[in-house]
Amino acid sequence: MVLEKKSKGFPRPHPQKNKYLAIKNIMSSTDLTLDAQEIHFILKDWLNLSRLTEYECFKDFDEETVEMLLEEGMRFAIDVVAPSRMESDRIGCSMENGRIKSPECMKEPYRKGFELGWAALNASPEYGGQGAPASVGLAVNEGVNAGNPGLSAHFALTTGAARLVESFGTDDLKKKYIMKMNRGDFNGTMCLSEPHAGSDVGAGLTSAEACGDGTYRIKGTKSWISNGDTDLAENTIHAVLARIKGAPDGTAGLSLFLVPHTLVEEDGSLGEWNDVTVASIENKMGLHSSPTAMLKFGENGNCRGWLLGEENKGMSCMFQMMNEARIGTALIGLANGAAAYHNALSYARERVQGVHISKVRDVDAPRVAIIEHPAVRHNLMQMKSKVEGMRALLYATANALDELTCLDKEDPLYETNSMLLDILTPLCKGWCAETGIDTVRTAIQVLGGVGYTKD
Amino acid sequence: MVLEKKSKGFPRPHPQKNKYLAIKNIMSSTDLTLDAQEIHFILKDWLNLSRLTEYECFKDFDEETVEMLLEEGMRFAIDVVAPSRMESDRIGCSMENGRIKSPECMKEPYRKGFELGWAALNASPEYGGQGAPASVGLAVNEGVNAGNPGLSAHFALTTGAARLVESFGTDDLKKKYIMKMNRGDFNGTMCLSEPHAGSDVGAGLTSAEACGDGTYRIKGTKSWISNGDTDLAENTIHAVLARIKGAPDGTAGLSLFLVPHTLVEEDGSLGEWNDVTVASIENKMGLHSSPTAMLKFGENGNCRGWLLGEENKGMSCMFQMMNEARIGTALIGLANGAAAYHNALSYARERVQGVHISKVRDVDAPRVAIIEHPAVRHNLMQMKSKVEGMRALLYATANALDELTCLDKEDPLYETNSMLLDILTPLCKGWCAETGIDTVRTAIQVLGGVGYTKD
Repeated sequence: MVLEKKSKGFPRPHPQKNKYLAIKNIMSSTDLTLDAQEIHFILKDWLNLSRLTEYECFKDFDEETVEMLLEEGMRFAIDVVAPSRMESDRIGCSMENGRIKSPECMKEPYRKGFELGWAALNASPEYGGQGAPASVGLAVNEGVNAGNPGLSAHFALTTGAARLVESFGTDDLKKKYIMKMNRGDFNGTMCLSEPHAGSDVGAGLTSAEACGDGTYRIKGTKSWISNGDTDLAENTIHAVLARIKGAPDGTAGLSLFLVPHTLVEEDGSLGEWNDVTVASIENKMGLHSSPTAMLKFGENGNCRGWLLGEENKGMSCMFQMMNEARIGTALIGLANGAAAYHNALSYARERVQGVHISKVRDVDAPRVAIIEHPAVRHNLMQMKSKVEGMRALLYATANALDELTCLDKEDPLYETNSMLLDILTPLCKGWCAETGIDTVRTAIQVLGGVGYTKD
Repeated sequence: MVLEKKSKGFPRPHPQKNKYLAIKNIMSSTDLTLDAQEIHFILKDWLNLSRLTEYECFKDFDEETVEMLLEEGMRFAIDVVAPSRMESDRIGCSMENGRIKSPECMKEPYRKGFELGWAALNASPEYGGQGAPASVGLAVNEGVNAGNPGLSAHFALTTGAARLVESFGTDDLKKKYIMKMNRGDFNGTMCLSEPHAGSDVGAGLTSAEACGDGTYRIKGTKSWISNGDTDLAENTIHAVLARIKGAPDGTAGLSLFLVPHTLVEEDGSLGEWNDVTVASIENKMGLHSSPTAMLKFGENGNCRGWLLGEENKGMSCMFQMMNEARIGTALIGLANGAAAYHNALSYARERVQGVHISKVRDVDAPRVAIIEHPAVRHNLMQMKSKVEGMRALLYATANALDELTCLDKEDPLYETNSMLLDILTPLCKGWCAETGIDTVRTAIQVLGGVGYTKD
């Protein structure tokens, strides 16, 4: 089967199946609990995922393979990723000699994530990926994200930027960059925002000037760049929106460029610094294991970029990655909401406090676990409903994307799926981000004072 | 007038009145803005505060005096308290040789708050307080709390514990402790929770054993104690719920004790350590300038306590302070919600991004401040409504308390006000705490990425 062919380190199917309950039950309230049963129900029973095997591109992803992937992926999230969560959050990223330093404990899960194939699960087999359906990738990533959102951001942005090169780059760029990115040797980013151009991305001032040799001289400041620099990889490849001199104002004049932090020679070795400066880490609350940075391109006039796609079509190219990032943002809400729900559930089962409501006047009544209290139960049910709602919406959206990937553009279903995605993608981002926060906030209520302190 | 008599350092009325707009308008988005106009409207026009002068106990608080108090109190919050907010939050409290160390920048606002009379604004003139109505104290405290919630907690808990001594202590205890607490020489706490007795306070295991000399030997662990220890004062006085040996189970067997960290001699000087150990700082999120601690009483069998009120009536005595703390918790929601609203409003007026909705397809249209965008405006109006709702509810509740303070117990209005307070007090706590968080969350949306980073 395809998985064995593509990556030596990738797990092979093995005879023990349906381990989900075991995975679920061994967790305590401080560990990561993944709801394998629910995920299985959504993918298999509700979305009937195995029908994708009828299409050529997903023919290898039969039920057994998908089950194996989910089980091994969740194991990876629990055993390798989750142990880094608290320490990487506590230590956070820092600046050292103008470069960003990641917490030491990020290194192993980062390396293993790429080596074992989890990071590039959805990437093309042609470029080192596993070619799995987006919905399967999402399910594994739910675990990785719950285990450490910063690590998940590294995986998603790097493979997303690689996919931009695959969709819009020249053969030369594809050869030079994609494989290295899908293997985690190179880190990837998306550079849209500028200090005075956030939601109004068309107001961006970053400029590009043709050098005459097919490259462009890039100059400008980009802000809020997730994983803007890293020591987890040997290079960082930026996907940068910039305006070619003379291009129209607004988004219609933006072009997309590939801008490496360090130039890459023809033989793939690293060359000179490409005049990309890390100005600062922007101290984002609640996410310290992945750096958000302000970057300066071409402060010394020596920053070179390579065009991706056509001139002035940068915005529509970038939308490919923006739509992935929207789903990625939604996933943060789902994954962390689900993790918070399971922590609250475990705590509510263990924490003994007060008596049953029917015996509230009886001082000798036995103390009960707080899950017995109607107000706590109500909170737990609210969380469970929201988590399952988020999961259903997100997985169904990813499933629509899988259909779209397989369908011929002439197929009447193609347009239906395409329009559905146009509606669902921003809805996923908006609703799951808000609902994820609601869920975590409710979990804090269930945990009482314990939920509002750091260990 | 009474204010001049009571405290040398307390501000005197002066001829310049109605400076509220000036105070309001000089703020920028990073400073503290207090809505003096709104506060004035609620107290004067809506609650008709000056009618309290008809009662003997508040006869000195005429309109001019109250206006002066509000103006000077807000000045104090803006000029003295607010500058400590960010630094004290960043540095936080720490443990040093078994005692808690506060951020250095807390010292001046703490000292001045007591010296100038702001901390003990509502305390009895007999014991160094200003005897102001609760509603006036609340208005000043809204500013102090918005300026630095940790400082406000110090003021409220210390004067609240002093009021317990005033209500339930012997003359000897009153003489020894209250004045020192209302002057900030001694810090005060309320000790209810234990690791296994949070909301179920009646399950507390802390014990008290009569020594035969009128004192009790206290033994037990108390957790989540706000300002459980401090270096801002020379001593800390704990109000501790404990069960006298042989007393009934549940809350009906709890008694209230005054337990000083360091014993106080007859002449008022400090004596020996009273066997109160600071076990740890509990790292509460979002509140670092005031320590939340776990305390161990009588680990060496040498911790002495003095009974406040009658044996086994501790819970009903403590409710006096718990009701104050409920209003104090509600005030955190109001004060920080209001501060967040004003920051968001200033930012929305300054931040230019995107074009007016009527010109969304015109790339040459002028960029506008984001307050012009309907979605931002909607968020701002939501926040404004919630802040004004919280303020009206809280101030009206404090006003009902002021009436109750003045009324004779035989007056038919006494019971009406008493029942109203029973309903409104928990409602204030629950609704304002939730609504304060909602408001801050909306403010973060208005500020965009800037709102989700630390400076």
